[in-house]
Amino acid sequence: MTRFFVPPEELTGERLLLTGENAAHAKVLRLRLHEQVLVCDGEGQECLCEVADPDPKSMVLQVLERRASVTEPGVKVSVYMALPKSDKLEHVIQKATELGAYEIVTFPSARCVSRPDEKSLKKKLERWRKIATSAAEQSGRGRIPEVVVLGSYAEALKRGAEADLPILFYENEKSTTLHMGLEGKQFQTVSLLTGPEGGLEEKEVAQAMDAGFQVCTLGSRILRCETAPLCALSVVMYAAGEF
Amino acid sequence: MTRFFVPPEELTGERLLLTGENAAHAKVLRLRLHEQVLVCDGEGQECLCEVADPDPKSMVLQVLERRASVTEPGVKVSVYMALPKSDKLEHVIQKATELGAYEIVTFPSARCVSRPDEKSLKKKLERWRKIATSAAEQSGRGRIPEVVVLGSYAEALKRGAEADLPILFYENEKSTTLHMGLEGKQFQTVSLLTGPEGGLEEKEVAQAMDAGFQVCTLGSRILRCETAPLCALSVVMYAAGEF
Repeated sequence: MTRFFVPPEELTGERLLLTGENAAHAKVLRLRLHEQVLVCDGEGQECLCEVADPDPKSMVLQVLERRASVTEPGVKVSVYMALPKSDKLEHVIQKATELGAYEIVTFPSARCVSRPDEKSLKKKLERWRKIATSAAEQSGRGRIPEVVVLGSYAEALKRGAEADLPILFYENEKSTTLHMGLEGKQFQTVSLLTGPEGGLEEKEVAQAMDAGFQVCTLGSRILRCETAPLCALSVVMYAAGEF
Repeated sequence: MTRFFVPPEELTGERLLLTGENAAHAKVLRLRLHEQVLVCDGEGQECLCEVADPDPKSMVLQVLERRASVTEPGVKVSVYMALPKSDKLEHVIQKATELGAYEIVTFPSARCVSRPDEKSLKKKLERWRKIATSAAEQSGRGRIPEVVVLGSYAEALKRGAEADLPILFYENEKSTTLHMGLEGKQFQTVSLLTGPEGGLEEKEVAQAMDAGFQVCTLGSRILRCETAPLCALSVVMYAAGEF
């Protein structure tokens, strides 16, 4: 079923008018009278609606049922990824959204090659949020994952460590598996931290341990920086009983 | 450590000469006398070598130690992916190689949009194999996953069903989770079958069940056709005790 995201305040009445990009999207879809669609507030609430007025210039929807989104995972997993080069973060945002991430957090680390200035970062953030919105619509999420940019590695550690289960993946960690990191643990919030192309520095890994992160391996093969977070996210969703 | 793949027959003596693309790669790396590298036969055997003659025109390596590759997973997972559009299979080949897939098998299914002719398929296959080789080198695999093209869906089912654990993922399967599919099972070989952009037809899913496939869900969110196999592969590697 087609899914639209609207600001929560637009989803309070019994009828709603699609505007802006949603209206344009509805026009392309050529929705017919009484056709059903889902309208989500992007925060986990959704309304089953039917088309009350199919005029593409003023598409009006009638709310049939108001409910909590059924596609949101029970566990909140935050993906902390050190800022990579080029379009790799875009890839991770799209895939992590499909896989059910709660948020995607990026930050600088010592070996990050990409160092965008504030202006270009602002533009990128806008683009990243659009990618998250579009992936949320297509994958049937009830919530659009937040994309967050932090100013420093220290800030990422402090914020990430607030989760029930903060885990960092490091290619030089040989003994502690993710299985050990998850086994027998109760968790509702998880932070998964991974490095940039060149990996994290040993000093940075030690800092993360001090901050409360557990350091785990994702196996004996070297994963690319964009593969590691998605592999870890898939496994945490599985371990949390999502599928 | 830098890793080269050579044909098994070149890895029998005490010394070996790097040729072709390996020689070109070694030249770029500017390997020095006594520097250590790994040379793999692509079938799970590897040799720790040191540079005996660093002349870039005739780079000679001395074998120090011959051993079974330590980075190959204990479980053999075959990724069966219905032929997708554009560069999605390239993406899956690269990532599945990193994640430890034994082979990547592609085949036509009813809703496949991509229908390359034999000539273009031959060219693509060559490219796909190069991607697997390059990803195997970079991720430290001891084996280059085979890329296999099958002529029909029926052939894919027959071949895939020979695994200890043949699993098909279907977005309309709501009750059988991958966890149920894996729980308590002993397996050394696994087939993971996923559909193209438009998904598999119900009839195709029934055919797969007849052939011996178990049908599982990957959760309540709709994964893109290139995301599903990598999510499933990550989880199977985790469940098999790889990390």
